[in-house]
Amino acid sequence: MKPFRLSTLVVALLASTAVNASWAAGAPKPSAAASDSQTWRDVSPDNLALIETKYGTVAVELAPEFAPRHVARVRKLLRAHFYDGLTFYRVIDGFVAQGGADQDTSATADAPVNPEILKKWPRMKAEFDTTLPQSAVFIPLGNPDLVAPEVGFVNGFPAGRDPKDGKAWIVQCPGVFAFARDNAEDTATTEFYIVIGEAPRRLDRNLTAFGRVLSGMQYLQKLNRGNPDVDSGVIQDVSQRDPILHMTLASDLPEKERPHYQVMRTGSAAFAKLLDGKRRPAPEFYHRPEGFPNLDICGVSAPVRKLVP
Amino acid sequence: MKPFRLSTLVVALLASTAVNASWAAGAPKPSAAASDSQTWRDVSPDNLALIETKYGTVAVELAPEFAPRHVARVRKLLRAHFYDGLTFYRVIDGFVAQGGADQDTSATADAPVNPEILKKWPRMKAEFDTTLPQSAVFIPLGNPDLVAPEVGFVNGFPAGRDPKDGKAWIVQCPGVFAFARDNAEDTATTEFYIVIGEAPRRLDRNLTAFGRVLSGMQYLQKLNRGNPDVDSGVIQDVSQRDPILHMTLASDLPEKERPHYQVMRTGSAAFAKLLDGKRRPAPEFYHRPEGFPNLDICGVSAPVRKLVP
Repeated sequence: MKPFRLSTLVVALLASTAVNASWAAGAPKPSAAASDSQTWRDVSPDNLALIETKYGTVAVELAPEFAPRHVARVRKLLRAHFYDGLTFYRVIDGFVAQGGADQDTSATADAPVNPEILKKWPRMKAEFDTTLPQSAVFIPLGNPDLVAPEVGFVNGFPAGRDPKDGKAWIVQCPGVFAFARDNAEDTATTEFYIVIGEAPRRLDRNLTAFGRVLSGMQYLQKLNRGNPDVDSGVIQDVSQRDPILHMTLASDLPEKERPHYQVMRTGSAAFAKLLDGKRRPAPEFYHRPEGFPNLDICGVSAPVRKLVP
Repeated sequence: MKPFRLSTLVVALLASTAVNASWAAGAPKPSAAASDSQTWRDVSPDNLALIETKYGTVAVELAPEFAPRHVARVRKLLRAHFYDGLTFYRVIDGFVAQGGADQDTSATADAPVNPEILKKWPRMKAEFDTTLPQSAVFIPLGNPDLVAPEVGFVNGFPAGRDPKDGKAWIVQCPGVFAFARDNAEDTATTEFYIVIGEAPRRLDRNLTAFGRVLSGMQYLQKLNRGNPDVDSGVIQDVSQRDPILHMTLASDLPEKERPHYQVMRTGSAAFAKLLDGKRRPAPEFYHRPEGFPNLDICGVSAPVRKLVP
């Protein structure tokens, strides 16, 4: 294996375009601790959902700053072990992996919602967008977007913002975690989906997005797919649906068993440098002198690392 | 299973954002044959590469109108069974799956190219962009792009175009097939990659892209991944690299064994209607009255169908 090749440059510059591609294991050096905390923030175990599949564990950071009601609901669902043993019942390649009960919980009037589930987990008021708390700083990407008036990052989450009403929302990039719903706005109950393909931006502000995958996208990509032309991609042969073995909030685990993730602060100098590197990639390999001044908000993601105790 | 649910609408409107999501099996009705040929074109078996993996077969349409030298090279490689038994040795989640010999064929001066391979398959002049033949009509998407001066479709391939020099190129969307190279422009020999994540647009016009996946993206998504932080994502444990069982040109198969694909003509009224539907999705589900006037060139793909003999 030679140390330097095509791939070296491409990866060095493109790694963080992929969800989780900037993942790096290993604790930071103690000597770097001070500046390190300016660059990295800890993920709270109260915001860390762990989805155990047979291929591996998917770590999702929840974003209460965008959708407090939905985050509170998911925490309750996880504490009740609601998802354990349920499945990814609707998986469409290039689009979404949807998990939950598939017990009419996302049905319309034609297909009444399972009354037992609805009683315990009533329909929620949508949180498609929000007025962010002052502590949640919006860091602009610095270039236009095709869909949103403005795009940027809030605590590592890809975000849109509308100067007209001041509202912000999570952009539906690969790895984004959201709740499914019926036709009416305020109908989400328990079913979630994770985006697994090119950002389906038409879902922006039309569904409540409130998290993103920090690691384990590759396991979602292994999930069995449905046929999008049959029953909207719902996998007809129930035995072919990949199970959700467990879905747990990290804070419900014994402290020793909690994984410790950090996300690069999207307001840090390190992140600004990363964006700059993407706009002007290494000229040894990239032969377009004009560079790439406009980035896709879903083509850059805040790096993530897992600390080893 | 209820016939109507959240998923119905989302899928109906989003299906073709996913590579291959608009796949539909079954021959067209004879009565519809006339208008049908205005909407669909046959994929030539000379342009159809079939990559057999252990998860399933990936069908790639080659685009000689964009890169005749590279298409000629791939046809020769397939006829020589070059790839059979080689592997996907570098797979980075959210970015690319790279296949071939991994025998220094894409190495730099530090790592000389395998002389045996180089002798047989010399470095090629790059075809990053081209002046399209008159028969290859560029159909504009109809909205701006973040990277290219103009984007649209040519024979179903997502394309960029520069009015300054009239050149066109395939945009590096999910499913796009291209050749890897070294730092210098004219160094591609045999190694290919397929985009498996959010479009890495910085590769546009920097690598020779000359095909796209018509079906089987979900099999590429199952490939074992490398660690992007180690040797650029090259899978270190050789036993973990998923094999390319066979890679064949359809025209090299007996006529009876050739799969018959059709691609929706991107100049057809049906495709224009599809784009329109994406800009103004069903208001029963999508509650943003302004719609989505600007589409991502990589978020819409020309529908594909496979005819059953």
